[in-house]
Order: sequence, then structure tokens, then C-alpha cells
Amino acid sequence: MTSPEQHDRMANAIRFLSMDAVEKANSGHPGLPMGMADVATVLFTKYLNFDPKQPHWPNRDRFVLSAGHGSMLLYSLLYLTGYPDMSIEDIKQFRQLGSKTAGHPEYGHATGIETTTGPLGQGIANSVGMAIAERKLREEFGSDLLEHYTYVIAGDGCLMEGVSQEAIALAGHLKLNKLIVFWDNNSITIDGAVSLSDSTDQVARFKSVHWNTIEVDGHDQSAIAAAIEAAQKSDRPTMIACKTIIGFGAPNKQGTHKVHGNPLGADEIAATREALNWDAEAFTVPTDILDAWRKAGTRSAETIRAWEGRLDASGKKAEFTRRFAGELPPGFDAAISEYKKKLAESKPTVATRKASEDALEVINGFLPETLGGSADLTPSNNTKTSQMKSITPTDFSGRYMHYGIREHGMAAAMNGISLHGGLIPYGGGFLIFSDYCRPPIRLASLMGIRVIHVLTHDSIGLGEDGPTHQPVEQLAALRAVPNLMIFRPADATETAECWQIAIKTPNRPSGLALTRQNLSAVRAEYSEKNLSAQGAYTLAGSDDAKVTIFASGSEVEIAVAARATLEGKGISTRVVSVPCTELFFEQPEAYRNAVLGKSPVKIAVEAAVREGWDAFIGPEGTFIGMKTFGASGPYKELYKHFGITAEAVVAAAEAKL
Amino acid sequence: MTSPEQHDRMANAIRFLSMDAVEKANSGHPGLPMGMADVATVLFTKYLNFDPKQPHWPNRDRFVLSAGHGSMLLYSLLYLTGYPDMSIEDIKQFRQLGSKTAGHPEYGHATGIETTTGPLGQGIANSVGMAIAERKLREEFGSDLLEHYTYVIAGDGCLMEGVSQEAIALAGHLKLNKLIVFWDNNSITIDGAVSLSDSTDQVARFKSVHWNTIEVDGHDQSAIAAAIEAAQKSDRPTMIACKTIIGFGAPNKQGTHKVHGNPLGADEIAATREALNWDAEAFTVPTDILDAWRKAGTRSAETIRAWEGRLDASGKKAEFTRRFAGELPPGFDAAISEYKKKLAESKPTVATRKASEDALEVINGFLPETLGGSADLTPSNNTKTSQMKSITPTDFSGRYMHYGIREHGMAAAMNGISLHGGLIPYGGGFLIFSDYCRPPIRLASLMGIRVIHVLTHDSIGLGEDGPTHQPVEQLAALRAVPNLMIFRPADATETAECWQIAIKTPNRPSGLALTRQNLSAVRAEYSEKNLSAQGAYTLAGSDDAKVTIFASGSEVEIAVAARATLEGKGISTRVVSVPCTELFFEQPEAYRNAVLGKSPVKIAVEAAVREGWDAFIGPEGTFIGMKTFGASGPYKELYKHFGITAEAVVAAAEAKL
Repeated sequence: MTSPEQHDRMANAIRFLSMDAVEKANSGHPGLPMGMADVATVLFTKYLNFDPKQPHWPNRDRFVLSAGHGSMLLYSLLYLTGYPDMSIEDIKQFRQLGSKTAGHPEYGHATGIETTTGPLGQGIANSVGMAIAERKLREEFGSDLLEHYTYVIAGDGCLMEGVSQEAIALAGHLKLNKLIVFWDNNSITIDGAVSLSDSTDQVARFKSVHWNTIEVDGHDQSAIAAAIEAAQKSDRPTMIACKTIIGFGAPNKQGTHKVHGNPLGADEIAATREALNWDAEAFTVPTDILDAWRKAGTRSAETIRAWEGRLDASGKKAEFTRRFAGELPPGFDAAISEYKKKLAESKPTVATRKASEDALEVINGFLPETLGGSADLTPSNNTKTSQMKSITPTDFSGRYMHYGIREHGMAAAMNGISLHGGLIPYGGGFLIFSDYCRPPIRLASLMGIRVIHVLTHDSIGLGEDGPTHQPVEQLAALRAVPNLMIFRPADATETAECWQIAIKTPNRPSGLALTRQNLSAVRAEYSEKNLSAQGAYTLAGSDDAKVTIFASGSEVEIAVAARATLEGKGISTRVVSVPCTELFFEQPEAYRNAVLGKSPVKIAVEAAVREGWDAFIGPEGTFIGMKTFGASGPYKELYKHFGITAEAVVAAAEAKL
Repeated sequence: MTSPEQHDRMANAIRFLSMDAVEKANSGHPGLPMGMADVATVLFTKYLNFDPKQPHWPNRDRFVLSAGHGSMLLYSLLYLTGYPDMSIEDIKQFRQLGSKTAGHPEYGHATGIETTTGPLGQGIANSVGMAIAERKLREEFGSDLLEHYTYVIAGDGCLMEGVSQEAIALAGHLKLNKLIVFWDNNSITIDGAVSLSDSTDQVARFKSVHWNTIEVDGHDQSAIAAAIEAAQKSDRPTMIACKTIIGFGAPNKQGTHKVHGNPLGADEIAATREALNWDAEAFTVPTDILDAWRKAGTRSAETIRAWEGRLDASGKKAEFTRRFAGELPPGFDAAISEYKKKLAESKPTVATRKASEDALEVINGFLPETLGGSADLTPSNNTKTSQMKSITPTDFSGRYMHYGIREHGMAAAMNGISLHGGLIPYGGGFLIFSDYCRPPIRLASLMGIRVIHVLTHDSIGLGEDGPTHQPVEQLAALRAVPNLMIFRPADATETAECWQIAIKTPNRPSGLALTRQNLSAVRAEYSEKNLSAQGAYTLAGSDDAKVTIFASGSEVEIAVAARATLEGKGISTRVVSVPCTELFFEQPEAYRNAVLGKSPVKIAVEAAVREGWDAFIGPEGTFIGMKTFGASGPYKELYKHFGITAEAVVAAAEAKL
């Protein structure tokens, strides 16, 4: 044990860095870093297996600050333990434009930030994904190469959010015993006491989903240490309830919501310096304390050297390294091309959800790193290919996750799986339920990570389930998210191409919107080139056509049928397939202008709302799609009822000419 | 007690109507109606206080089928108990276009459907709102006029979804003892056994949030009845875990996922008829059984007559009736006008979140039916006015809900409050967290109900909290939802107008996107007319201007400043304020064309993504806004960094001219 005095001074270093940085920025959250400083000090100086000089070491313990508003806790720890890219100047730049030390921890801004947190509940759900990845890769590569803990600090807010409940239920079910969550039980929220809005017995709630639970005084270093050691030995995930005082040390404000999200003010900071007997200037850590912290940051160096020796001797080094680099094995493109050739011959009439399964059959056969799953819609999402055995609590040799009816938890866990490294997660749901998991989809886009959402039943084409299940605004809503690639392939060939792009793009998440209903093949012949990668391309017709019809997914066959009729009437018509609007608008201007073209009549067809299509056809263009929510009925009747037919396209073109 | 034989035959009537309707539609979910038929029969024939002939009686017990895919259970009950608008023909039209009997229960399609369900977890969360409304109105009007139960049937899917966990934690905290949830514990999900994805001890979990729990055999009518009677006496909400066999009665498929969401098939239906000893033809209910059901539907007639007598004698009839009709008292517009006059004089520079508080101060002072709240952001959302005392578990005399850090649960509960009638709910959150509650926002839009979301911190203007908290795509994503009014007012006057519209529109939900940062007043003078109700209007400049700048919210002052510079340079410029794109596109074409105008240069300015603005400016127009996620820093620096300034607008206009 560190002496009590030494421990206190090390923890106080976190407290003062945090309160001083918040004060300088005149913005931020001092309460959590001050309250959880003792827990973090024990964890980082004695247990966390990590090396600031080798921050990407694959077998490091992961640390997730789920309560991301307490970002100064993490930044303080990174600085104190000696991450080379976190200087005291960086700390001084807290919350300033362009700094590494953003208001909330941003993945990629500095090493040691394992995930972007801030939207509450996401971090703890990410951590469940990290623990899944650890368990799965341990099974695959063996404990010699991969076996580590995932530690989390979560607040009351994290635990009130439903996503955390989805995630902890899954973690308990899967017995992810290397997952250890510290709950900052400080009884305070922004509105005031937790008791204003909640009276949950958190310990009982975690127990009800089969977690191990331990309760400690969050300011007692011995108790914290004992709890961590007990947790490490558990056969189940552990929640350590840490009773803390928010803003610990600020004599007049601690224990109240005043210290949660506002600077303490000069007077209170002075009073805290006195109360904690801290003489050092702002942003200065006494040398002996900084030395002790830096030494703690070197604890794992020998462990890493030994691990490297095992990796070298394992015979698995090349594959392990490739997997953690996120690189694909050679031959992936060739495998897709071969499959596309077969499709060009067979020209299957098939629902794109089934075409997705067929493409996945190729992909999963070629790549051992894909980890499939579904939010309890496996037979509808077609996500389980022949290679995918189900993962169970006692057997992680499979590659398929039954995430349960937990779209939000699934998406957040997939972020954690991707962030962990070594695996490419994909998960299925209905497109409509993307609404349940927008926060993690957004965070994946912000972080720039490879997570693939299989979003089937993508329009009124799903039929009888009716408007609660028929997406109309989800495509527009997802296309609005920066950096997210939303694909809506028109047939089996485009589906294969969209999967190819999604798999090959390590720094962007994807969503594939797929039909329940069968679609004809629209691509006339084999193309070596991935045409979908351009986002939109001319499928048929010439540049000087009088009419251009833009369409995506299931409506491309409608556009093709309308073209046949129009051409039959002597009206030259071009059809542009638009599998991915995001990628299209990233193409060079000349390509974009060529595809948009100069037809006097422009029509867009999509069984969804118009929003976004004006960028193709302008306000004066004709949009054939949905203006309202859908309805329950057989899908062919719905298409007629809502006027999304080849006849309607023809009539619109003729009316405009 | 009904004789066991009689009970079984009454329950079997539900089973056969359900399986036969699913068979005829060749689509649907027979499993739940067959499994829960016994529970529903006991509830509807002995306990539920309702009258099919007076379906809108305000004091009826509410019944919510949270597991909405089991819609045939509800339709069967409505037909059997004698709702005049649910005929056997309607049952035969199950899942057909234009029918009342959609795939999932749709609010408004038939009386007796208390809420639209299907997206799992929403119904149980709605029911928490209904129970809150009941408790609040009981406090206000007294038990003589309002005191009823809210009953719910929820499945495993409902309970796995995080939104249900948020809602039940809130219900337990508030001791909503008139809420009684039947959990259809059938151990089956779409993927197979529940044990594939979950091992939650649901009874323990409900206990951990202070619910009363009871476990029964869901096919034992005596046990079910005893459980309901015990639940009715509880001082806490009750969860009755009903162990059932999904698809009960289908001899070869019951108890498996095969019976969940597919027709049984002719052979299995024949086998079920034999197994359950049921001779009647499809869609025919034996007369004695139908008579018994119809009689059950008349149980409450006398209760209602007595209640009407109490209402007549109460002295509160006019107010009670007004409140449940959802009508506003006379003088509301005058109160807003008076407030707008003051604003026209004072022209305050104020954040619109504060302007919203000021408008609410007027509204809450005038309307006793508003029920405010926030998802633990009260001091940031400015939602608690002087009239708003906090509601606590033991005191519902207040009008303010601390919903906790539960945006999703809050939004779904607000739907339930609105559906219950008698109250107008509004709730606060950050605009970014609208992503956490899109499913209930969508359902409110689909149902056409009055629910008001106060969405503050609406852009990079929130500053240092950074990209996780800065909305860029949320405006586009929300504007894409049909029937939803998203307002983004530019100053205090527009804020008052937007609130006026939101309150006065009983059949649409609203969201108000509001700033953290101060804004200047942009409206030059008092206008009796609500200009914001047109969605967009010319704020300054003439129709023949060379340049038109469209802007919303905080960017209107930027547009106004740019206009001043341009006019100073001799370039005629018009500014159009766009507080609500939805309402604008609902205006007559002539008005729209006049506002869109014919300026050769069109510019739109909004600190958000472009999606949607092409409808105003066309693809050739200039958009000044966000192309990426935001960043952490002081907000004025962010506006410069992202190029959203008056100077940038001026430069863009000059470049185009």
C-alpha cells in the first residue's frame, strides 16, 4: 500500500489539476474528478495494466470514463502517468479550440482516450463491447496473447439511461467477468439530489442481471484496492459501488450540485488549497508526487516485454498484428469480384436482405474477424451465415451474437468491439429501429470507426406491419449524420459492392438499408469496378436524355420500368442509381455534374421523404415518394396507394415535358 | 368466478379470432394473443372499468398492449366486448389497407386503442405517463372524478428495451400504485429461447426499483384474479409475472418461436380446433360465448352513471370537461399578445432558452394544465417557472416532473400523459439528446398528439462541451419526421409565437430548438399576427432584392448583419426568417413562391447541415453552415472557425453576383 499521505497527495494532484483547468477555461465539471480521484489513483497506480509509452499495446487493460463530463479526471491521469502527447500545456488548453483536451474525451485527440464519451450511458455500453471482444479474442488467440480487464467509471446518469441497462443485462448474461465498473455513487445530479428523480437500489439491480457487486467508501484506498482484487477474481462482471463526495475537498461546495458542472471560483479554490494542505501553484504538481505518478506509469513495461516474447513465439504474430491493424488479408477484392461475376450470370431476383446474406457468406468465409449479430431479428435480418455459430455465456468459439431486443445496447457494444480492435462487428435490426440507436451510430461517425449496421425492412415494402415499422424519414435522418455511409443497394450486385466498401473502410461506420421484398437484378453486366463506390452512377441511358430518373434501392427497378415505357414513347430517358448519397457528394465536381446531368426533366424516386433529394433534382424537380407515414397492408397495394409506381413516374415525366 | 369451462371458452374465442385473422391475412402474430388470452379474459371480464359504448369516458381504466405485435388480442377484445366500431368484418380485414385492424394497434383507428404500440418498450413507458397523469389529476380534481388503474401487457422484448427500464424506475420512484403490468413470461423471442440473449431475474429487477411483484401461472384464472386484486391494493406499482405458453393451444407449435410471428397454417389450426374442442367456423363466436363477452362489456355502465352524477354536482364540470376536450380557456391569445407587446418595447437581448422560460411564465400562469419537466437539465433548459413546484412521490400538488437522466423514458411518458388527457406535457432536454428519444417523438407524430419538447443548446453555440453535445444533424433529422413541428425561433418574440403555436395545436407534437447563447431581437415592431405560424416570412428587405438570405434561430442575426453590410455596399438584400420549415411548406403555393422569391442570389445560413435547405435555395444556392461535427471551444471562436459569420455571408453574396 502507498502510505495514506502519499495516496492523498497523489489523488489531490488530480483534484487540483482538474479544478484549476476548469477555472482557467471558465467552463467544465470539477465535481467528478475531485470525487473519484481516490478510486482512479488506486486503479492507475496499482492495477491498471498499461504503458503510456505504448498506448496501443493490444493487451492493455481498457479504461473507459463513461461519465465523460469528468474529462479532467482522464486528462489528469494521462498527464500524470506520462503519456508523451499530454503535456501540462495541453491541460492548460482545456476546452479551447483545437486542443486535445476537449470538453468531453474525444477518441483520437490523444492516446489513452479509448472512446468518446459524454452522452451518458454510452461509455459503459461501449465497455461491454470491449469485454465481448476481449473474451472472443482470448478464445481465438489464447490467454497468452490476449487477456485483460476493462474498467469503467460510470455515474448516476449513466445508470439511469436505458442503454446502460441493456448493456449490463447483456454483460451479466454473457458472464463477462473481466469487466469491472466503478459506480460514482455521489447522490447528486444536475437538478439536485438523485432522490429528486430516482430511488433505484443499484446494487440489487445489478444483482438481478447476475453481476457481482461490492460496496465501498470511495475515499478509502484500502477498501478500493480490496474491492478491485475481489472483482478480478469474480466469475461474473463486477459493479463496485463507490460512495463518494462530489467535489471532495472543496469545503463549502462539496456534496452539492453546485460543484457538478461549474468552476469553483477563486475563493473556493483557495479554500480547497487550504483544506487539502496543497501549496503548489496552479498547474504545478510537486516533483515527488509527479515522480510517483510517472513511476506508476512504468509498471507494465516488463509485462509488455514478456508479452512481446510470447507473441513472437506464438506462430500467430502475423495474423494477430494484421487483425489489430485493422487490415484485410490479400485476396478480399478478388473474392468479391468472383462473387460478382456469378451474380452477373445468374441475375437473381432476390430481396436485398437475402442478397446481403449471400454476400456475407462470401465475406465471413474469407475474413475470420467479422463478428455478426442481430437484435433478435436473426431470421428477418439474414445476418447469420453458415460460418456463424452462436456465442453463449460458456462458449465464445462462435462468431454470432444474440444481442437480444436491445438495438441501442447492441450499437453501443459494437462501437466498443470495433474500438477494442481485432474484430469487425456487424449487427442487424430493422431500419426503423435505427431510431433506437442513433446516439451510438453518431458516436461511431464522430470517432471514425468501422461498425456495420444491417438495416432491413427499409420501406413500406415491408407491408403489413404498418407505419410503426415502415421507415419513411430514417434514410434522410441517417444521411444527415456526417461521416456515416448509408447504402441502399438496388440489387444483389450493388449489395455486394456496398458490403465491399463497408468492410474496406476502416475509418467510417456504415449502414445498409435492405429490402424485405424481392427485387430484380438491374445491373446489365459484370463490372470489375465497384460502381457503388461513386455513390451514384448512370445505370442506363445517355447524357443527352430528356428525362433523368434518380432512384435508390427498391425504386431503381421502378425507374428502369418507367424508362422502358418512356423510351417506347420516344422520350429519351436516363436512370441514375444512387446507392450512397454521401459518397456521391464526395466525388469530384466534374463527376457529380456529369451524373446530375442537364436533362430538362429530373425526377427522383424513393419510398421515403423528399428531404435530401432536392440536392439532385432541385426544388423544381419532381419527387415520387412518401409525404406521410405509411400504412398496414400488402406491399404491392401500398406502393400503388402511395403512388410510387412506374406509371406515376411516366405520368410525371410527360406532364413536365 | 366464471366456471372453468366458461372461462376457457371465452379465452378460446380470443385464440380462434386471432389465429384465424392471422391465417386469413397470411401475416401477423398469433403467439401472444393465444398465450395471454387467459390473462386478458380475466382482466376484461372482471376488473377493467370501461364501457365500449362510452370509450372516451375520462375515468376509464386504461389498457395498453405494449407488446403491440399481439394486436389481434386487442382487436379480439374490442370486438368481443362490443365496441360499436369494431365489427367481425373489421377483424376479417386484419392487416389490409385502409382497415381499422392494422398490423400493430394504431391510435385513432378504432376506439379502445389507447396508444399506438409496436416499437417495443414504448407502450409500457406510455403507461407510466398515463399513471402520472392519473395521479396528478386525482390530486387536482379529487378521487370522485378521477381515479383509475392503468393496465399493461408487456413482453420480454418490452422489458429488454432500455426505455422500459427508464420508465419503470421512474414509476417505482413515484410510487404509481395504480399501474399494473402483466409480463407475458413465455421464454420465447424471435431468435428462439429468451435464454439465447438474456438471463435477467425480472422479478428481482422490478423489486430493485421498488415495484410490488407477483408471480402466477398465466393460464390459471383464479391465480390471475387473485393477483389483480392484490395488485389493486398495493402501495406501489405492481408487476405480475405471468408464466405462459406462447401460442397456447396449438398442439405442435405452442411454446416455440414458430408461433410468434407467422400464421399457424391450416393443418395446425385444425389441430388446435380439435385440441381445444372448438367447433365454430372461422370468425364465428358461439352465441353463448359472445353474449357472455358482451355482458362483460356492460359492467361499468352503472359506475359511469354515478360518476356523471358526481361530475354534475362537483362544481368542476366545466373545467374538467374543457381539460379533457383539450381546449384552451378564452383569453390565451390575448395573454400572448400582451406579452409580445412588452417584448416589442423592451427588445431584449436574450438566449432563446431564457426567452422560452419567459414565455412559459406567461403560459403556465394562464393554463393550469401544463405539466413541465426536464431530463435532469432544469437549470439549463429553463423549464421550471415560478408556478412549477416539483412533484414528489408523496406530493403531486406540483406541476413539475424531475424525469431524471432518462430522455427516452421522459418522451414516452409525455406521450402517455398527453394520451391520457387533461394535461399538456412539456419536457426539456438538450437538442442533441433528441437522438435518445426519437422513437416516442415519432410515435407522437404518427398519433397526432400534443407533446412539446424544449430542446436547448441547439448548435455549436453551446461552446465548450464540444461535438458530442453540439447538434449538427438533429434539425434535419427531426424536420424529416412527418407531422412534427420543429421550431427554431430567432428571438424572444419568435419564441413566444412558437410556443403559442405549439400550445394551440392539439393534434401535432412540437419541438423548440433554443440557444444557450444570447441573441439580439430581430423583429422590428409588434405584430398582432403570429408571423412564425407561416413557417417563414420576410423579416427585412423588398421582393426585388438581388440577394435573399434565409436563416433560422441564432443565424438570423447573422443574416441581418450581413444585410446591413450588403445594403451599405448598394446590394439590395432580403432576409427571410425560417422558424419552422414544416409549416412553411404547408402554406399556399402563392405565399411560398413569394417568400422564396426570385433573387438571383440565394443563401441559407444555419449552424447545422445543409440537408433540407436545397428546398429553399436549390443546389446552386450557397449554404453557410456545418459540413462536419463541431468542436470544443468558446462559441464565438467556433462560429469563426466554421465560417458561419456575417462576413462569410457577405463574401458569398459578392462572389455570386
